[in-house]
Amino acid sequence: MAMKSTKIYYNKELKFKDPIMIVGLPGIGGVGSLVAEHLKNEFKAKKFATLYSPHFIHQTIMLSDGRLRLVNNRFYHANIGKKDVVLLVGDTQATTPEGQYEVNEKIVKFFKTLGGKSVYTVGGYNISGNYVDYPRVFGVATTKKMIESLSDTKIIFGKATGAVWGSAGLIPAFSKKYNIDAACVMGETGVLEIDANAAKSVLQELSKVLGVKINLNNIDKIKKETERVIKEMEEAAKNMPENQQPTRDNLSYIR
Amino acid sequence: MAMKSTKIYYNKELKFKDPIMIVGLPGIGGVGSLVAEHLKNEFKAKKFATLYSPHFIHQTIMLSDGRLRLVNNRFYHANIGKKDVVLLVGDTQATTPEGQYEVNEKIVKFFKTLGGKSVYTVGGYNISGNYVDYPRVFGVATTKKMIESLSDTKIIFGKATGAVWGSAGLIPAFSKKYNIDAACVMGETGVLEIDANAAKSVLQELSKVLGVKINLNNIDKIKKETERVIKEMEEAAKNMPENQQPTRDNLSYIR
Amino acid sequence: MAMKSTKIYYNKELKFKDPIMIVGLPGIGGVGSLVAEHLKNEFKAKKFATLYSPHFIHQTIMLSDGRLRLVNNRFYHANIGKKDVVLLVGDTQATTPEGQYEVNEKIVKFFKTLGGKSVYTVGGYNISGNYVDYPRVFGVATTKKMIESLSDTKIIFGKATGAVWGSAGLIPAFSKKYNIDAACVMGETGVLEIDANAAKSVLQELSKVLGVKINLNNIDKIKKETERVIKEMEEAAKNMPENQQPTRDNLSYIR
Amino acid sequence: MAMKSTKIYYNKELKFKDPIMIVGLPGIGGVGSLVAEHLKNEFKAKKFATLYSPHFIHQTIMLSDGRLRLVNNRFYHANIGKKDVVLLVGDTQATTPEGQYEVNEKIVKFFKTLGGKSVYTVGGYNISGNYVDYPRVFGVATTKKMIESLSDTKIIFGKATGAVWGSAGLIPAFSKKYNIDAACVMGETGVLEIDANAAKSVLQELSKVLGVKINLNNIDKIKKETERVIKEMEEAAKNMPENQQPTRDNLSYIR
Repeated sequence: MAMKSTKIYYNKELKFKDPIMIVGLPGIGGVGSLVAEHLKNEFKAKKFATLYSPHFIHQTIMLSDGRLRLVNNRFYHANIGKKDVVLLVGDTQATTPEGQYEVNEKIVKFFKTLGGKSVYTVGGYNISGNYVDYPRVFGVATTKKMIESLSDTKIIFGKATGAVWGSAGLIPAFSKKYNIDAACVMGETGVLEIDANAAKSVLQELSKVLGVKINLNNIDKIKKETERVIKEMEEAAKNMPENQQPTRDNLSYIR
Repeated sequence: MAMKSTKIYYNKELKFKDPIMIVGLPGIGGVGSLVAEHLKNEFKAKKFATLYSPHFIHQTIMLSDGRLRLVNNRFYHANIGKKDVVLLVGDTQATTPEGQYEVNEKIVKFFKTLGGKSVYTVGGYNISGNYVDYPRVFGVATTKKMIESLSDTKIIFGKATGAVWGSAGLIPAFSKKYNIDAACVMGETGVLEIDANAAKSVLQELSKVLGVKINLNNIDKIKKETERVIKEMEEAAKNMPENQQPTRDNLSYIR
Repeated sequence: MAMKSTKIYYNKELKFKDPIMIVGLPGIGGVGSLVAEHLKNEFKAKKFATLYSPHFIHQTIMLSDGRLRLVNNRFYHANIGKKDVVLLVGDTQATTPEGQYEVNEKIVKFFKTLGGKSVYTVGGYNISGNYVDYPRVFGVATTKKMIESLSDTKIIFGKATGAVWGSAGLIPAFSKKYNIDAACVMGETGVLEIDANAAKSVLQELSKVLGVKINLNNIDKIKKETERVIKEMEEAAKNMPENQQPTRDNLSYIR
Repeated sequence: MAMKSTKIYYNKELKFKDPIMIVGLPGIGGVGSLVAEHLKNEFKAKKFATLYSPHFIHQTIMLSDGRLRLVNNRFYHANIGKKDVVLLVGDTQATTPEGQYEVNEKIVKFFKTLGGKSVYTVGGYNISGNYVDYPRVFGVATTKKMIESLSDTKIIFGKATGAVWGSAGLIPAFSKKYNIDAACVMGETGVLEIDANAAKSVLQELSKVLGVKINLNNIDKIKKETERVIKEMEEAAKNMPENQQPTRDNLSYIR
């Protein structure tokens, strides 16, 4: 059967008890991907389903063993604390609005069939365009109840303004339609492609949500590497003619 | 049911008597949005239906109470003067031609099911690219009868040339197909994103159409703020090297 | 019925005898539009059908009498010489490849239902990017027979290289599928939006195809106006600092 | 029947015995096209099927005999060594992700109906952005078995990183779904549109796959011409002011 629309295939069918889903897909500062991949690795999550879509970019990923695979999104399962957790990671998001609506509603419907109870999407929130030393964590949610359930965390509600792009916002929006509580949790970040510092802040808050300690050593390594690169660029900038010094705009090449 | 095409959901089903619709969606100078939002607030209109579309940008709006919602268009109802008025406001318009045709025809069909009699869309009309102190109001309509019905206003017909983009033009065009009289009413404007002065001119003419006085205090506040910002930019420009002074083109950053 | 795909509506149903179709839609140098509009005016053609498409740009045209209409393509009929001629003119072409394939196949199928025998599409062919004083006319056709039928004209076959964009090429390509002979006739042109000189050259050749004299006074007026504008620009260029003088690239603003 | 989706038409129905397919479509460095066209010419392959798609660019190709044809992809057949070989060449690839998924799955399904056993797609792999004197050949494949079957060649597996764009990657990805072994073979290249040197390296490896000697004279001619052009540009660059000398980025105009 030809792939005319988004499809989810089981790699292994599993049963879940009141699962929660944490979604970390590519986006601002790479925060979502960093968080979800970190949880996947730390809690040895197992892949159980794969999503393909003709609305994804027409790319094939080259693997280190010489094989290739279509770009996709992948569902993993892990027991974290006492919870059944579904982790959603992936190479990409849909490239058009129509594709975004299709893919994200499909994800929510699939999670509903798993008996899904609540969803946390992870993203970055860019305020200043500068690297942030102590990133705050902002949230938006589908219901007052969800906001209250996060009152013991440092996630700040009601202060972020504007719009959330892509899956981080559409998955909660569709969750509401399917009666699943959902929140979008965003680490404050600048223009960097990979902002492990923002990811670390989010992980610290998710640790409270999940009721479990999360080892952050690997995130700390990425964070230090990022900070080293930024410092180098700042040093280099000092020696440039003034009108060529990096600004928020021309720094975008490091994205 | 998955959202594969534009859908309108009732928040509350209402009955109307010969309703007229005023459409103010995002567009040139923000004129449409300013006008419709102003009427909504001044006449305490109530939301009764919401339109979602996979052709809208894939964004989710963050609300000040910490909750989120999908971008949408919203139908409000108010009694203005002796008329049943439907106001259409929204965050966005469709992002593709195909989406524009679908969304705007859906809007007209929905209004037809409400017993709709006439439609006024509001937009901006950019002639010079400069801020206009005394903006004129231009109109185009589906029928001679509609033009004549507006002969007591200062709306100028037959002078605007070129094309109207998006809903402001397509909703009247589809209204014609569904035997609803329609006009597009455009405030003369420059390149600013928010031109309350143009909105004020349109409101003054709609006041005659609706046969009711419209309090313009809130629009006047936005108008003064806009004029203050423009003055500041002009002052700042005087101190710039000549080749960096703002022109019609490089002023676009204030859009 | 909602407009989900391209539709053609009859304004007046006509019967034709072995009609030929001449297609002049917006494109390089405006050559197609100039030629078809000129024939329409000179031979007092009457509109008999209108094509709308959700693949056209989402624009509505403002008419000089204060009314508006959706962008469209229009079929006209005229007796030219002894021939039943269908003229296709319009505001726009489809904005996407998918839309182009749909619209142009629809046009050919519609012409087939009219008993269509042969099609001539008109376009511009840009070789040098400069204004051409004595434009040649280039052709490509679906069959050897069609090329031979044009051997008494000065239309040059087999010399133009590369690709034809949009309707000027796709209509002949689909004509072949529907067993209609077709040729694309292109006036040599530069980068100008309106090149009446190229249009004139094409009209001189079509005059032979149609076996009729075509009054070119109106085209000559546009040609002279164009040449005056170009001269002015060249004069102005002489007084510019050298690095700001118009080149093929920066002249594009006059398109 | 209107062309709403990708169609493959037989020019001549053929029977194959365990055919392999070599795919060379437009892409990085023109490597795929150069390789497949070279094989087509050297082994006097015959066209037997043509693929059209509304997802291809809306262009019509002007032929040297004065005729025209829609852009397409073409299937050729040749006996090379002892093998039944299908060569896929073409003017273009689909312009959208959705189109790429449709076209490439259609190609694989068609090859499956021919009894297809294995597929080799050919592309370019750009590492440095510079012209490469001795290009390496990189590979990715669908299965370990396919990688092993190429162990006698110099094709390097497991070293290329990142993503393959378009048909070169999607055709192998879909081959996997249809149980056809597939590899993507990439010649190392720079930013040139036509890199015959990279094509030559790939042909040398395919020669081993096909178990046949391939005459490379024609490729050598293109290679020499390319090298002459590059040398000229490098000479010209020496005389430019320093900040205008070609870099990886501004060399893109030669693409």
